Amino acid sequence: MRDRLADAMVSEAAFEGWSRAALQAVSRQLELPAGEGDRLFPDGAIGVLTYASERADQRTVEDMEKEGVANLKIRDRIKSAVRIRLERHAGNREGARRALALLSLPFNAPLAMRLLYRTVDAMWYAAGDTSTDFNFYTKRATLAGVYSSTLLYWLNDRSPGSEATWGFLDRRIDDVMKIEKLKSQVKSWTGGSVRTASRR
Amino acid sequence: MRDRLADAMVSEAAFEGWSRAALQAVSRQLELPAGEGDRLFPDGAIGVLTYASERADQRTVEDMEKEGVANLKIRDRIKSAVRIRLERHAGNREGARRALALLSLPFNAPLAMRLLYRTVDAMWYAAGDTSTDFNFYTKRATLAGVYSSTLLYWLNDRSPGSEATWGFLDRRIDDVMKIEKLKSQVKSWTGGSVRTASRR
Repeated sequence: MRDRLADAMVSEAAFEGWSRAALQAVSRQLELPAGEGDRLFPDGAIGVLTYASERADQRTVEDMEKEGVANLKIRDRIKSAVRIRLERHAGNREGARRALALLSLPFNAPLAMRLLYRTVDAMWYAAGDTSTDFNFYTKRATLAGVYSSTLLYWLNDRSPGSEATWGFLDRRIDDVMKIEKLKSQVKSWTGGSVRTASRR
Repeated sequence: MRDRLADAMVSEAAFEGWSRAALQAVSRQLELPAGEGDRLFPDGAIGVLTYASERADQRTVEDMEKEGVANLKIRDRIKSAVRIRLERHAGNREGARRALALLSLPFNAPLAMRLLYRTVDAMWYAAGDTSTDFNFYTKRATLAGVYSSTLLYWLNDRSPGSEATWGFLDRRIDDVMKIEKLKSQVKSWTGGSVRTASRR
């Protein structure tokens, strides 16, 4: 039932925003008993948004596994991840735009950062990232930049099949690959990060 | 006294890592009363590291203001920020390498993300960023990618005056500027993010 309510909310949010009014409207549409919407999501609309975002992350991971991205090059795995997330699991553009408006309020900053982090962490996980050193953070930070800018681009993209967005994504992924290249260059010395320095 | 202890720890960490042993060693060097190091930093070495990182952020902001970066173009403000942070306030390379080793442990991940976020947030603040929409996150995520990869590059840079690092930084800043350019292109529609959608 949380899934159904979240799905309905994603559609309704295009009109009413991620608001209490929208949550009440979809609860009525689904003919839920009075108070059931509040019971399912005690944090209200922001709780539904959190749930919907994490479910979209999970579905993106499942789709990536289903489509065997493990056989692709890293650059294409990440490209697939962002495209799957936006094309299949971000809902309609207006609902997504309303979600960003809510997440842009200063008191929602910690949640916004957390959701963005979880999204890119899920993508790197499904892409088979196994880094255990500081590159772990560099990759996630870089992808957060790529994903969030691609998301903004997509919101306003009117091209057929959002082709302009995928072209934009392709250019942004170049940045991720620079990091990958850097990583392979520096592997030797990050491996030495825990060695004992001799006193000079 | 916290400042002096943190400074001494930054030097000592090159040899002993960010460890309890290092904290005890510098407490002895500074002739602190027994237990004073623990009183000043109840969280131990990780607390000193947090303190040192935030102080370095603050000093970077102060230096940027002193040098009047407000008169520079955005690209040069951000470049100055990263360079000042690494060149003047990151301590010696081996101590920084040890800090990254500690922050790369899985249970320190939340702290690592928080410190990285605070560093880039301080840089954007001092660079005069006033964005209040989702670009706020995109800029911070992108700079986190640039800063952390430049930090890794710098750790291994043996070129005179770290010139190779500043060249690397220059190329990475191109990414930030792509975002800036995107931002100016999309300003019109992000301004419309809270408008009421008409029912279709």
